[in-house]
Amino acid sequence: MKFVHETSPQRIRFATGAAAAGVVAEIGLIGAKRVMVIAGVPEAGIAKSVTAGLPVVLHHDEVVMHVPVEVAERARAAASAAGADAIVCVGGGSTTGLAKGVALTTGLPIVAVPTTYAGSEATHVWGLTQGARKTTGTDPRVLPVSIVYDAGLMVTLPVDLSVASGLNALAHCVDSLWAPRADPINAAFATEGVRVLAAGLPKIVQDPYSIEGREQALYGAYLAAVSFASAGSGLHHKICHVLGGKYDLPHAQTHATVLPYVLAFNAPNAPAAEERLRTAFGASTAGAGLQALRQALDAPRALRDFGFKESDIPAAVEDILPVVPVTNPTLATADNLADLLRSACEGNDPE
Amino acid sequence: MKFVHETSPQRIRFATGAAAAGVVAEIGLIGAKRVMVIAGVPEAGIAKSVTAGLPVVLHHDEVVMHVPVEVAERARAAASAAGADAIVCVGGGSTTGLAKGVALTTGLPIVAVPTTYAGSEATHVWGLTQGARKTTGTDPRVLPVSIVYDAGLMVTLPVDLSVASGLNALAHCVDSLWAPRADPINAAFATEGVRVLAAGLPKIVQDPYSIEGREQALYGAYLAAVSFASAGSGLHHKICHVLGGKYDLPHAQTHATVLPYVLAFNAPNAPAAEERLRTAFGASTAGAGLQALRQALDAPRALRDFGFKESDIPAAVEDILPVVPVTNPTLATADNLADLLRSACEGNDPE
Repeated sequence: MKFVHETSPQRIRFATGAAAAGVVAEIGLIGAKRVMVIAGVPEAGIAKSVTAGLPVVLHHDEVVMHVPVEVAERARAAASAAGADAIVCVGGGSTTGLAKGVALTTGLPIVAVPTTYAGSEATHVWGLTQGARKTTGTDPRVLPVSIVYDAGLMVTLPVDLSVASGLNALAHCVDSLWAPRADPINAAFATEGVRVLAAGLPKIVQDPYSIEGREQALYGAYLAAVSFASAGSGLHHKICHVLGGKYDLPHAQTHATVLPYVLAFNAPNAPAAEERLRTAFGASTAGAGLQALRQALDAPRALRDFGFKESDIPAAVEDILPVVPVTNPTLATADNLADLLRSACEGNDPE
Repeated sequence: MKFVHETSPQRIRFATGAAAAGVVAEIGLIGAKRVMVIAGVPEAGIAKSVTAGLPVVLHHDEVVMHVPVEVAERARAAASAAGADAIVCVGGGSTTGLAKGVALTTGLPIVAVPTTYAGSEATHVWGLTQGARKTTGTDPRVLPVSIVYDAGLMVTLPVDLSVASGLNALAHCVDSLWAPRADPINAAFATEGVRVLAAGLPKIVQDPYSIEGREQALYGAYLAAVSFASAGSGLHHKICHVLGGKYDLPHAQTHATVLPYVLAFNAPNAPAAEERLRTAFGASTAGAGLQALRQALDAPRALRDFGFKESDIPAAVEDILPVVPVTNPTLATADNLADLLRSACEGNDPE
């Protein structure tokens, strides 16, 4: 047991149906008097009601995926012109990402109100794009001071998107268990995340208005983000990053499809992770637990359904092999990675 | 799911056999140049070797249980006279407590090197005594900036003390599940704490030099402290506090003896806690898991063995009843509390 774990300061407020009062309380603790609200056009209505009790000096709605630098710069200039002393962001990963882009240079404190399971609100990771090039980094200033989670804001997220992004969060948890900075503390978060995501997601499929399911998924997404930010990217994320970048496969669906194959690849050489996952799923093996959950969620099965072809495999392997973390429990070779991708392409039984 | 959870910033370094290098690294990150070392006389040797690589300006060894105010004041004056810019404390709860007493007024950052399972290093709780009166409070300034855990320093802690303080840590975990500020995040820490304490403590009983057992117990003690500081005192701690104060019963032994009775009292009305504990113990019920562990550890069984008498029960109930947390899952009455204490006094089967 040899590790260094860094715990970041943050207030987490779970307040189903009470986001507005929660945001008022958190802004009150910060002592802010001039609030900048960041929310995209689709979230304008929600943002209006959530921030109704605040001293708002600016509503900013230019939210763009991957946070282009020029978009961040316009938001920074607007914050400065309005004399904002805090940011409340209401939305998914891109919205939180823009708030982080502003905080990075201005130091303004952020109160985040998430409306997806992306999890950016619980990490100190920022990302900005210039043209096609994405730069990411970590900075304690971009970590939101507070998160206000309101499961009531999630009930309108469509079921298929909820499943895909919920499984993406699950992949963060599983991959954390063998990531480069995996340690027993982030493993505890990851294990709890698997447990509640496995409990909550099926409830959302049965009833998108299930508050219990929405709460569990939201709490699971928080845990997934904390464990992933702490442990770093494992084999699963390296594979998905290559597939997403090179073949333009859809992010959450790629994660949902590839995960069981990475689990089957690593589990035989990761007995502690296998035991944690088996217990968290309440199943006979980690793999069986994941497959049962995927079945209950009617999760995507084969990469070929998203345009990935068997002929793409050799080039993908060439890109993946050099970025496999040295900590990965199973030694990766060109051959076994090709087998993994072939199975994922066809949707074969992972075992 | 309605709660506010506050995560405090801290660096946790697990470094078995490498405390000295770990302390150098942590002091380097702080940038301190004039270190005050706090360690009691029994820990002088360990402290000397652990702090050998540091720019030490002062060794302070006046460590007294419960941190009398005048002892804290002498330590503050010594820190100031020596121009210390950081504290390294090496020892158990009283040693960490003295470092906190100094930090409370001076703001000096603390690097803690624990040598027991007390857990004070992971909380922002301080305590000072004036005569017979103990004052406690919380302050972010007293939370050590870093903890360096070295399981190698624990192997000389006698087995009976290890068991008693390990079960005390376990009691923190269990009681956290129904304490006033219990929430799913501190419950995740508590559950993991039960899991590793149940795994580690029997290994120490079999072999006090088991590094694996010592590591698990130390990690469990950390988790117990984090969950307890976050969730607050539940019924178990209220009972033990009264028994300890009124009848001068030994602290850790009292906790170890009373815990199964509080669990039996609350479990029927705390299904989520029961399920967490059952899973963490890997047993058919939470109670069965705890009793199996206690048997493996030859844990203390009856309060009468420590001088508590059946005739003490009515007065104890009178003191306990008004401090039972309103969140307690089972409604406490004079009758059922008297039953609980009678069973604990005699060492009856908790079920």
